[in-house]
Amino acid sequence: MDNYKLHFIPLGGVVGVTKNMYVYELYKNDALQDIIIVDCGIGFPQEKELGVDFVIPDISYLKDKTDKIRALLFTHGHEDHIGAASYHYEALGKPQIYTSKLTTMFLEHKFKEAGRVPHMEVIKFGRDYTFGGFTVRFIPITHSIPDSMHILIKSPVGTTYHGPDFKLDLTPPYGLLPDFYEITKAGKEGVLALMSDALGADHPGLTASEKIVGQTFEDEMRGTKGKFIMTTFSSNISRIRQCVEAAIKFNRKIVFLGRSMKENSNTAHDIGYLPIPDQFLLKEEEVMQLPPNKVCIICAGSQGQYGSALFKLANNKNKNIKIKQGDKVLFSSDPIPGNENEVYALIEDLTLKGADVIYSDIADQLHASGHGSQEDLKFLMRFTNPKYCVPIGGTIRHQREYQKLAVDLGMEKNDVYMLDEGDTLWFSKNKVQTGEKVETKQIYVDAYGVGDVGSVVLRDRHTLSEEGIVVALLIIDNNGNLVSTPKILSRGFIFEQEGQGIFEEAGQKVESALLPRVGRLSDKSALKKEVGQIMEEFFFKARGRHPLIVVDVIQI
Amino acid sequence: MDNYKLHFIPLGGVVGVTKNMYVYELYKNDALQDIIIVDCGIGFPQEKELGVDFVIPDISYLKDKTDKIRALLFTHGHEDHIGAASYHYEALGKPQIYTSKLTTMFLEHKFKEAGRVPHMEVIKFGRDYTFGGFTVRFIPITHSIPDSMHILIKSPVGTTYHGPDFKLDLTPPYGLLPDFYEITKAGKEGVLALMSDALGADHPGLTASEKIVGQTFEDEMRGTKGKFIMTTFSSNISRIRQCVEAAIKFNRKIVFLGRSMKENSNTAHDIGYLPIPDQFLLKEEEVMQLPPNKVCIICAGSQGQYGSALFKLANNKNKNIKIKQGDKVLFSSDPIPGNENEVYALIEDLTLKGADVIYSDIADQLHASGHGSQEDLKFLMRFTNPKYCVPIGGTIRHQREYQKLAVDLGMEKNDVYMLDEGDTLWFSKNKVQTGEKVETKQIYVDAYGVGDVGSVVLRDRHTLSEEGIVVALLIIDNNGNLVSTPKILSRGFIFEQEGQGIFEEAGQKVESALLPRVGRLSDKSALKKEVGQIMEEFFFKARGRHPLIVVDVIQI
Repeated sequence: MDNYKLHFIPLGGVVGVTKNMYVYELYKNDALQDIIIVDCGIGFPQEKELGVDFVIPDISYLKDKTDKIRALLFTHGHEDHIGAASYHYEALGKPQIYTSKLTTMFLEHKFKEAGRVPHMEVIKFGRDYTFGGFTVRFIPITHSIPDSMHILIKSPVGTTYHGPDFKLDLTPPYGLLPDFYEITKAGKEGVLALMSDALGADHPGLTASEKIVGQTFEDEMRGTKGKFIMTTFSSNISRIRQCVEAAIKFNRKIVFLGRSMKENSNTAHDIGYLPIPDQFLLKEEEVMQLPPNKVCIICAGSQGQYGSALFKLANNKNKNIKIKQGDKVLFSSDPIPGNENEVYALIEDLTLKGADVIYSDIADQLHASGHGSQEDLKFLMRFTNPKYCVPIGGTIRHQREYQKLAVDLGMEKNDVYMLDEGDTLWFSKNKVQTGEKVETKQIYVDAYGVGDVGSVVLRDRHTLSEEGIVVALLIIDNNGNLVSTPKILSRGFIFEQEGQGIFEEAGQKVESALLPRVGRLSDKSALKKEVGQIMEEFFFKARGRHPLIVVDVIQI
Repeated sequence: MDNYKLHFIPLGGVVGVTKNMYVYELYKNDALQDIIIVDCGIGFPQEKELGVDFVIPDISYLKDKTDKIRALLFTHGHEDHIGAASYHYEALGKPQIYTSKLTTMFLEHKFKEAGRVPHMEVIKFGRDYTFGGFTVRFIPITHSIPDSMHILIKSPVGTTYHGPDFKLDLTPPYGLLPDFYEITKAGKEGVLALMSDALGADHPGLTASEKIVGQTFEDEMRGTKGKFIMTTFSSNISRIRQCVEAAIKFNRKIVFLGRSMKENSNTAHDIGYLPIPDQFLLKEEEVMQLPPNKVCIICAGSQGQYGSALFKLANNKNKNIKIKQGDKVLFSSDPIPGNENEVYALIEDLTLKGADVIYSDIADQLHASGHGSQEDLKFLMRFTNPKYCVPIGGTIRHQREYQKLAVDLGMEKNDVYMLDEGDTLWFSKNKVQTGEKVETKQIYVDAYGVGDVGSVVLRDRHTLSEEGIVVALLIIDNNGNLVSTPKILSRGFIFEQEGQGIFEEAGQKVESALLPRVGRLSDKSALKKEVGQIMEEFFFKARGRHPLIVVDVIQI
């Protein structure tokens, strides 16, 4: 009998929550046969305050295997599941993409930005797809974006249920219900491993339906005499749709603010997921011409991002729209941990401008998580009845809480595998063992492009943020002479005026150190290094601190 | 094509919650073919305080049709689903009984008390049963007693999902999990009507698992130096089992108090549902010989019933067992509305005896309802995806709340049928209409037997409870002469001593009224009536009240 093995490799998504990318490899008699990949999203690193926009998965592991990649599947249209696709698509050998309608549309935007849109297959539910030795079935599930899916991955080794980001929403405002029959049928037929969302594993109970927020929108709109401004994640199409429906009910015209918000609502509108009668669509420039109680603004920037549409409104920087007394701003999202300061600063700014700001500390039902709580997660475990569990999309804390839930349902603790990025599992029939760890690097992306931001840059940014910077400029002539006393600049180190004396002193220190070699200062690299050391020592002695020292030599 | 119709008749269980009995009739071209009956339980009437023990369903409707009854099915072993079986079994023509193991055992007790135990078929899950034109499938479900079931009833008209008393318990302490696959498969194949438990329709969220109570038992036992006494419904085998497990863990021996508690725990023990090592079983007489922290008493009477085992303990009327300082009494059940006074009186008595009493007003997680809350009910609706819904086992309030839930899930209000007892529905393919109402009477059962307690008796009891009673005794001789002044007795009317004068006056009034006819007082019946009227008028004039007047004539 042939000896099949299934190799499961999370290239992201575990522990770090975001940057989801999962590789399933099928081996026959130790020879790799087929690969399918689920999701390829961006991540949000701890170092975001240092100017890194996001991280993307490291796909080095797949470098020599792209000919075996049979399909690239996407579970839903959130950035952390699709955002890296356009970066890696070519390097993955342009695999065939399969996903749901809305996700296709969101991917199309990503690919457009990157230059070329590949063909993508919009999947059908209730049928099997064959990808080499894999047979795959897509299952409708509910999350905070329509067209979310779970994926049943069958192979000669057994069936894995790939179940990321979900909650069991019995009344989704838009889109399909979870297909409980398909899910429980998988369980009946036997699931070897369940890869499950775990982000809500520390929340008791069942996550509220997205629908509760729709009622809140209506209630809040009813009493608002000014403009109604709602902010949420721009991918949360269900939320946006509910706000639109309430606005239409209360005869308010709708305007979208923020690039991503405009883009996503356009996309959803185009494919019929966000119907808005034409007469309800408002242009930004028209807003202030209407009575304020005829306006509903749906706005990006719910996390207090600097420069976002809501930030501009709060800081009087939107040239068309001003916040006035009587306006209401509703935050329909909770601050992501780490963003609290920005969000609260925004709330204060909006309040100062006269707006009535409603956010989750002072009101209920403004937001429903897209992630299942303990009971949702337990239901999925019971439905699929897996032999093994792998919590994905949660931090270590969530993984542990998930493990407790599994134990609570009678599973063995050891049958719940808590993986770190690059950790792998080898499944064979009814068995599993941990495999060798796959090396993964952090690949940073900022405004300048992918991978430009290495760890050195990040360390610099870290130093900058804590110690400031001192720049020394040396001007030398062709003969290797110092043209003038080195010029010293600084930012974020010490107060400029106070520092004037110390900088002059530093300049002189450098000058006198170089004096013996005047006329021979031609090795710029050595010069930079030497001056750097002198200054580092000097400033540490003078101030006990280690600013980032930058030395530049200009030859004239 | 043949014209099939399905006639659904609740003979109890709707509106009144208890006294569950549902009739399904299959007609072909308007001729009755087959009947199946689900459950046959007792009810607890409003008039319970007047000495009625319970009510049973009125089966007059089935009188001339017993030859069509193909099966009598029971969903679970609670009194309000099985308690009337022994009363009606013969009158129903001794139909074949099908149910689960534990229910069979509980029924056996009922039938034994009544004289003869019929053969009962213990059903198997995962297979179909054919009863005439019906095909029936039993589905494991969770409730507060193991071996609970839902029943899928298929006929040429369509499928009805008979779904009484349940919650979706993902961690039942004993017994099978809900079979989500079978339930959703029914939904996938098409359910015409869902008859659903509705009792928890006004509770938001998901009902807690029975398992939470087990942890509470352990926590409470850990800190208790005296005897540990737990009281709950005697049919709640899961609860009892959890208490037993905690007792064994803390090395306490176990004694059961109360007839029903002993009987049910014995039954469950006999079939392996309540394992207790022999050395942990304690006799009532041995309790006080053990150190109190080695004793666990599981006790009937959680509703404060007069004369119950717990009532006796609280009132020092158990000759073997006394409540002492340091004992702990845990109420693992909430008072049924109407029983609050009795329960609180009991709590006070126990506290006065020195016990530490734990009940749900002062502690959480002492009790988990056996009935699903809103989310449980919504899940069942989503799983089965019915065309019509019939809330059963709830009052009108619960029916309305259930209807709201259904509407919330997108059903039409008119597709939820809120039936009263005897209301009927006629189903044909994809359609339903309300049928003619079936007449049902209240059949009262008290200690003297079935039906002895007519409405006259109840009216009397009602009068007694509000106005008291006056009894007049007339003694006449064979010649129709009054032997003495009529003797007047009273209870509950006016204070005896105060009343002495008025009773003498009444006696004289009667005597003088009869004087003209002395020697002709032979028609006892007429005499009773006349005297009754005289007294009624007299007491109403004298005191403005209408006590129950009883006249008896003794001939010597």
